[in-house]
Amino acid sequence: MNPINSKLQAAVWQDDHLQLLDQRLLPSEQVYIDLYDAPQTALAITDMVVRGAPAIGVTAAYGVVLAARHAYAKHPDAWRDAVQADMAILAAARPTAINLHWALQTLGDLFADIDGNPEAILLAKAKQIHEKDIADNQHMGSIGAGYLAENCRVLTHCNAGALATGGYGTALGVIRSGVSADKISKVYADETRPWLQGARLTAWELLQDGIPVTLLADSAAARLMQQGKIDWVIVGSDRIAANGDVANKIGTYSLAVLARYHGIKFMVAAPLSTVDYNVARGDDIPIEDRAAEEVLSVFEQRVAAQGADAWNPVFDVTPAELVDVIVTEKGAVENPTTAKMAALRDKPV
Amino acid sequence: MNPINSKLQAAVWQDDHLQLLDQRLLPSEQVYIDLYDAPQTALAITDMVVRGAPAIGVTAAYGVVLAARHAYAKHPDAWRDAVQADMAILAAARPTAINLHWALQTLGDLFADIDGNPEAILLAKAKQIHEKDIADNQHMGSIGAGYLAENCRVLTHCNAGALATGGYGTALGVIRSGVSADKISKVYADETRPWLQGARLTAWELLQDGIPVTLLADSAAARLMQQGKIDWVIVGSDRIAANGDVANKIGTYSLAVLARYHGIKFMVAAPLSTVDYNVARGDDIPIEDRAAEEVLSVFEQRVAAQGADAWNPVFDVTPAELVDVIVTEKGAVENPTTAKMAALRDKPV
Repeated sequence: MNPINSKLQAAVWQDDHLQLLDQRLLPSEQVYIDLYDAPQTALAITDMVVRGAPAIGVTAAYGVVLAARHAYAKHPDAWRDAVQADMAILAAARPTAINLHWALQTLGDLFADIDGNPEAILLAKAKQIHEKDIADNQHMGSIGAGYLAENCRVLTHCNAGALATGGYGTALGVIRSGVSADKISKVYADETRPWLQGARLTAWELLQDGIPVTLLADSAAARLMQQGKIDWVIVGSDRIAANGDVANKIGTYSLAVLARYHGIKFMVAAPLSTVDYNVARGDDIPIEDRAAEEVLSVFEQRVAAQGADAWNPVFDVTPAELVDVIVTEKGAVENPTTAKMAALRDKPV
Repeated sequence: MNPINSKLQAAVWQDDHLQLLDQRLLPSEQVYIDLYDAPQTALAITDMVVRGAPAIGVTAAYGVVLAARHAYAKHPDAWRDAVQADMAILAAARPTAINLHWALQTLGDLFADIDGNPEAILLAKAKQIHEKDIADNQHMGSIGAGYLAENCRVLTHCNAGALATGGYGTALGVIRSGVSADKISKVYADETRPWLQGARLTAWELLQDGIPVTLLADSAAARLMQQGKIDWVIVGSDRIAANGDVANKIGTYSLAVLARYHGIKFMVAAPLSTVDYNVARGDDIPIEDRAAEEVLSVFEQRVAAQGADAWNPVFDVTPAELVDVIVTEKGAVENPTTAKMAALRDKPV
């Protein structure tokens, strides 16, 4: 396999506005949606035009730029107050990804020191967040790949790739780096019902970089492990609690239990902005339930009998004790605990 | 919940031929396919018009009747030889369900003693197999329900119901009996990718009997267990090895590992004809791989990027040590072993 240099981006600032690759249409269509205000941006997050915690964070940062532009145009002397309604709409777009709140907070922290039109300063910060996310992912990729032995067979779930981040990806960043270092001999990806991010996004994204991938139904992962065909499970995260409990796409917890049962290593790759030190443990992370219809139908075609109900949690929580290593841009934490996670935060850069 | 008296049947002998409910079209359409010869019948099994090991067995039995009719019409003095080609086609229709071979063997054993036209004798035997399967399922239902405490919350996988058997069902038979006995407070069903038998068939079948059901993505089962919402996992089987290892729909093994991890009981309900005493252990059971396309597409709509590959095993093997009880019409075997399974076989009726 060859070195990787993915240019794929979920969110792009284009001239004077935000463009999002509409991930609901991938891989059959590659369509960018143009966004000029924060409510549109929030709706795009809610409707999953863009998804993945770090990509939601980058998108929200650009959303604040748009919000501030409108607020300043209407109320140049009181834009800080005027922008709050849009910030609240962005904050409520999805409940689990903490990076969303982190991005809003990071831009909001600049407000007090801005004189005049805030757009340029906020845009510079949003771009910096975006670029740092890519650089951090590349660094994480290198750290994560360091854990892989030669001829590693890896399994990933959902899409924690360029499409889910500023670029390069978290879990797929580790896989990209592992492939570049010639350490990965096989990549498997769960299809990841109900949204099929594995089949629709991860397979497409990896193939863009020439990385072969074999998909499987989510429930087949256990058999793959039973047959001794997986060395590492590598996933991203939407929020990590202070004790190292990991919220991520529904099915992640299942893989973690199965990996432990089969003696397979389990890695979580996520930027430090995914760690919510205000939440002590995973049980306190808000988990989004989405509409039953997402399970009862596939591609808007009704599957289940009329009258059937469905339970559709979008995320689950993997206890820290099932995680072998959390990889961040600031370093890795093996067998995470509250103390180790705090030490990572407090470590000098 | 009210007593259950499901009349639903996957296979019916109608006047002079076999009718199969086309399960590929459920629940949106209820269409019966008329079959007049064995090759058509074998194709219907291969193409999954009918599925589920006991239903395949019943269907194959009727297929032998059709085969014998044609053989006798062409070669009244040598129909036993003439029927062999059709028997071979039926035997090759699907590899994992042992009930298929059991049914062929059961009818084949009658050949030597038949004088003249074999159709009536074979049809009587096929109908007897069919009726006994229903009665056995009702008996199994009663035995299985005996294991359930009050207010049980149960999870099932795929469809091991009336649609998968002669009628009443194996796993769903236990659930029907448990509901009748007012012991079940909640039924969950995995949607069961890639064929979505849980969403398409199990939900429809249970709702026909007025049993409420909540579907979930296969990968969400672990979270449901983690939240303490499941008391029993109840599944069927396509073949059970002599040591009690259980081949069943892909994802069953995953549930068994997860159930054990969470201290949840795991029950397999299957007629004795599902036990293959010629196969010592699960690793020796042939497991069907179907086309990658079944994972790469949903309802013939391509999901995954062109170039992506998929691994699509239809079944997996759950080791006996993860099974709390196997329920058959002849009795239940707790913590199955080779000796206990042999004792069940040898037990006087």
